Amino acid sequence: MAPEMSRPGGRTARVRAAVLAAAGDALIELGLPGLDLAGLARRAGVGKTTVYRRWGTVAAVLEDLVSDMVETSAPRADTGDLDDDLLANAGLVRSTLTDPRQGRLLTALICAAVDDAGTARALRRFYDARTAVWEPCVTDAVARGDLPADTDAAAVVRAVSAPLYHQLLTRGEQPGVADARRAALVAAAAARAGAFAAPVSAGARRTS
Amino acid sequence: MAPEMSRPGGRTARVRAAVLAAAGDALIELGLPGLDLAGLARRAGVGKTTVYRRWGTVAAVLEDLVSDMVETSAPRADTGDLDDDLLANAGLVRSTLTDPRQGRLLTALICAAVDDAGTARALRRFYDARTAVWEPCVTDAVARGDLPADTDAAAVVRAVSAPLYHQLLTRGEQPGVADARRAALVAAAAARAGAFAAPVSAGARRTS
Repeated sequence: MAPEMSRPGGRTARVRAAVLAAAGDALIELGLPGLDLAGLARRAGVGKTTVYRRWGTVAAVLEDLVSDMVETSAPRADTGDLDDDLLANAGLVRSTLTDPRQGRLLTALICAAVDDAGTARALRRFYDARTAVWEPCVTDAVARGDLPADTDAAAVVRAVSAPLYHQLLTRGEQPGVADARRAALVAAAAARAGAFAAPVSAGARRTS
Repeated sequence: MAPEMSRPGGRTARVRAAVLAAAGDALIELGLPGLDLAGLARRAGVGKTTVYRRWGTVAAVLEDLVSDMVETSAPRADTGDLDDDLLANAGLVRSTLTDPRQGRLLTALICAAVDDAGTARALRRFYDARTAVWEPCVTDAVARGDLPADTDAAAVVRAVSAPLYHQLLTRGEQPGVADARRAALVAAAAARAGAFAAPVSAGARRTS
């Protein structure tokens, strides 16, 4: 058996890694309108026929790029404490957004998704998958009795990310350690106060 | 005195309105790389010389577009109640993001700002100005004794917007009335819990 057939890290995996890296680079440099399969093959140093046969469309490459981002993402924290778990989540989001390549790739994908429904669907799957990975931090806190039973776990996890993305996208400012810390503790405090009750209802409002 | 010199709504204002509307349209349709002064003049039905003399660069047109967005934005709510003020703010952000033109213009500006420092500066001035308009909702609540004295008012106001922008940009989902309601009440609950203490410190963490 040839070596490349005996392990998943063989030629097929190398071709995929090269084409996905080329797609990320091209998206960052040129935006979605600058992507075409022949250009990606050239950039990746891979035969055009291979790229056409394996992916067929730029949309399929982008879907695969996003799938790869899901596969290679960090697992959730499991410290046994809601604050510490959400602090770990906020730290991961911050380090992803401030990573020169990952941050630019995410903003490029977000902007490509504005005008392209396929990219938007793929990106939504990516964020939903990442949210689902971290939801147990919240459901475990509910099980421990640290949060109200009707807490919307996905909404809490998204609330940790939201201010960090907002800061980067609306103010062009890289979120810092203090911003990540606040994002986590704001989400945790609001969750304890019952403001993430699901479904959203008047019950989330204070009763003074 | 000629009519156009006697009132601000005269020819000069009409030319400005036409050029800024054209710039918004072009930005939505083509993105920043598609903008040039001659094209904007044509689109606006205004003489090219007028546009070159008045603005000189595409960057200056975009700065003026953002200034106009600040000038024409709604004033803050002043209900005497933090929850109601933040609910009004969240409702305004939601209706802006879901407005077919305003929402697309803001996402187009956000994406243009990713690659262009001038647009990024102008956009940041826009968001900082809008935040400043709504900050008194928080400082008034502090003065009433409804919030801790060291509450970071700007951070609370930004926290209302953040999940609505995040929902639109990462999930391609228009924020609904329930989302706006939750965004406001989460920010208010976290502010009451002291999670927006400024500067961010370990004091925001629960002391259990």
